[in-house]
Amino acid sequence: MDLVECVFCRKTFPHDPFSPFCPDCGEAVLLAPVRADVPKTFRTGEDYPLARFVDFLPVSAPDRKLGLGEGDTPLIRLAGLSAGLGVPSLYAKNEGQNPTGSFKDRGTALAMQKAVALGFRKVGTVSTGNMAASTAAYGARAGIETYVLLKEGTSKTSVQNAGVFGPTLITVRGDYGRLFHDSLRIGRKLGICFLNSIDPFRIEGYKVTGFEIFLQLGRLAPDLIFVPLSSGGHLLGLMRAFEDLERAGFISRYPTFVGVQAEGCAPLVRAFESGRPTYERLPGARTIAHAISNPAPPAGNTVLKLVRNHGGILVSVSDAEMLAAQRSLASSEGLFCQPESAVTLAGLVKLGDRGGLAGRGPAVLVLTGSGLKAPHALDSLPLEVHDLAIDGLEEGLRALA
Amino acid sequence: MDLVECVFCRKTFPHDPFSPFCPDCGEAVLLAPVRADVPKTFRTGEDYPLARFVDFLPVSAPDRKLGLGEGDTPLIRLAGLSAGLGVPSLYAKNEGQNPTGSFKDRGTALAMQKAVALGFRKVGTVSTGNMAASTAAYGARAGIETYVLLKEGTSKTSVQNAGVFGPTLITVRGDYGRLFHDSLRIGRKLGICFLNSIDPFRIEGYKVTGFEIFLQLGRLAPDLIFVPLSSGGHLLGLMRAFEDLERAGFISRYPTFVGVQAEGCAPLVRAFESGRPTYERLPGARTIAHAISNPAPPAGNTVLKLVRNHGGILVSVSDAEMLAAQRSLASSEGLFCQPESAVTLAGLVKLGDRGGLAGRGPAVLVLTGSGLKAPHALDSLPLEVHDLAIDGLEEGLRALA
Repeated sequence: MDLVECVFCRKTFPHDPFSPFCPDCGEAVLLAPVRADVPKTFRTGEDYPLARFVDFLPVSAPDRKLGLGEGDTPLIRLAGLSAGLGVPSLYAKNEGQNPTGSFKDRGTALAMQKAVALGFRKVGTVSTGNMAASTAAYGARAGIETYVLLKEGTSKTSVQNAGVFGPTLITVRGDYGRLFHDSLRIGRKLGICFLNSIDPFRIEGYKVTGFEIFLQLGRLAPDLIFVPLSSGGHLLGLMRAFEDLERAGFISRYPTFVGVQAEGCAPLVRAFESGRPTYERLPGARTIAHAISNPAPPAGNTVLKLVRNHGGILVSVSDAEMLAAQRSLASSEGLFCQPESAVTLAGLVKLGDRGGLAGRGPAVLVLTGSGLKAPHALDSLPLEVHDLAIDGLEEGLRALA
Repeated sequence: MDLVECVFCRKTFPHDPFSPFCPDCGEAVLLAPVRADVPKTFRTGEDYPLARFVDFLPVSAPDRKLGLGEGDTPLIRLAGLSAGLGVPSLYAKNEGQNPTGSFKDRGTALAMQKAVALGFRKVGTVSTGNMAASTAAYGARAGIETYVLLKEGTSKTSVQNAGVFGPTLITVRGDYGRLFHDSLRIGRKLGICFLNSIDPFRIEGYKVTGFEIFLQLGRLAPDLIFVPLSSGGHLLGLMRAFEDLERAGFISRYPTFVGVQAEGCAPLVRAFESGRPTYERLPGARTIAHAISNPAPPAGNTVLKLVRNHGGILVSVSDAEMLAAQRSLASSEGLFCQPESAVTLAGLVKLGDRGGLAGRGPAVLVLTGSGLKAPHALDSLPLEVHDLAIDGLEEGLRALA
């Protein structure tokens, strides 16, 4: 039986597929460490990531037929950028190279293993973008009905990018924060397993990214890891990975995690900076970073607790800073990510300006999604396009080159 | 010194970075087999694909700093689709998971190694889409000036997806077929190394995909390989990979390659079906498949020659067939590719309808690019979006589920 634990109550409970919350205090729970007493190894001969890290995951024999080739994303050295930033050893983990173009596939892959193992024939999710497409893709792969609950006003592109996989698409009018909870309650009645943002198995899937970073750095924990922060699931998964590595004796020093929010929707940064243990829900969001604009993150207090336990940092950046960082990653390093992913570089720049990075490294930026998913973000990009007739090409190119 | 060979003259010549054509007969050349006399091994411990297959590639010590994490894309078993198609063993090689979302990154990666090794500080390309973005990304990564020559009327999305990497963008008015040749001529004068679609080193980069398929199938050559066909570079590279494998004694039976064009622009299929050794240039293209609509493919005759030598097949499919195949891959298998990639499945269906596939397999579809690169293709997708108020969610979901 799978157990979850609450980082507030310090108690463990049996996993409930219809609630990611503690039955006692109501905060978000995490999977309790699996096979805590068994020595852990990396099965490096396995090509399927869920099989390679199976000793650390709540799944004993992952069914690779349910996978789409998620994981094994590159860790790219950013030599060009790091020179100007005073961080001599800087890397990007490019999660945009996952099957549907975002890190969500890692979580969906593991959560779908569990949903299928538990016998569900229907899954669902509440999302406006990346998670909708990811869940619909893995649902199609598994051959099970998928229900995607969308916020009113979700962009046509997002609807299409999920709709192409053939799920049941439903726009829900009303409070989006309430929808998270209602979906789980109704799912319990109708036998639909909702794999929402902080599903404990989804969070376990994000651990794999952490294990890959450790191996890709030559069995070393980075000093700093920058992660975009919204509902909290991704950051929690990465933090749990390094807890697992520490517990298993693979690392002796825990990384400094830096969660980065958009200034226009930074409830957790506000609570962190004012020293409060719980955050206050915001009335709304004012940022172009829709993928990380959750004014009421369901795992928010759990994030605050875990970040403080581990000496982590939360910081926010402006839309202008994230767009500048997005262009910088593209033009200096050839990496085109979503603006929401570029908050990691913008956050690093901000900490560097505060003088907090002297002598630190290696640092890893987790780039959560492909820039191809956010074409609108380029509309403000000033592009000079020269115009030449083919007969004047030689002369024109000579003038430009 | 690197040598190229002409499959028509059967002669070899020194590689000329400013011409991919035979000095004698004018047809497209290919790199001559490298280290033909040396036993070949796969360096499976190497994580960088260009290093893993270095025995087969015209580069002795690839500089991984120039890479962006290209390659190592998944080979996905399509059990759901294959059941209905009479091909019991069917796979997709998902090239959309490359750094800029298309197979072009494989070719650019190797061509850039060569350009940098030859000392070029300026590179260029002629493209309307995938290759523009790929070349601009790798140019940014290498820190060298990149010149992207665009066709008049290239879509805003394509211009932005290349422009984000900061190249010099130039729209050229005039004949696009002539531009291919003019760019090389002018590049020679100005010291700009144009890495166009049939650059022999670019084609060598595509070989890596073939080697990966061989290893992913457990050191086995597939029976059938379906590849979208436009300028011819990609198909030639994949065919060369299996020539290398045959020459090195790794396979005893050469796969049947199936090149697939769009009906609205199928000059090579026309020549193939009428038995002609050379194709006739078409006046234009009428297809939504812009990425494979070249009415005058520069390596066209070389493709015809090599396909016939190896008992390959060329076939064309309609826009409606490729769109249906695109949706089928998404809704049955969770794979969202460009319509241009889905021609592979449509071509397989067509050959199956002709009765040509009984007992054949394994078959591999090479999906060349991510569906995220072609948002317009979804505009004709009929999507039913249900609309519910949150207070009626339970009742509404119950009715749908």
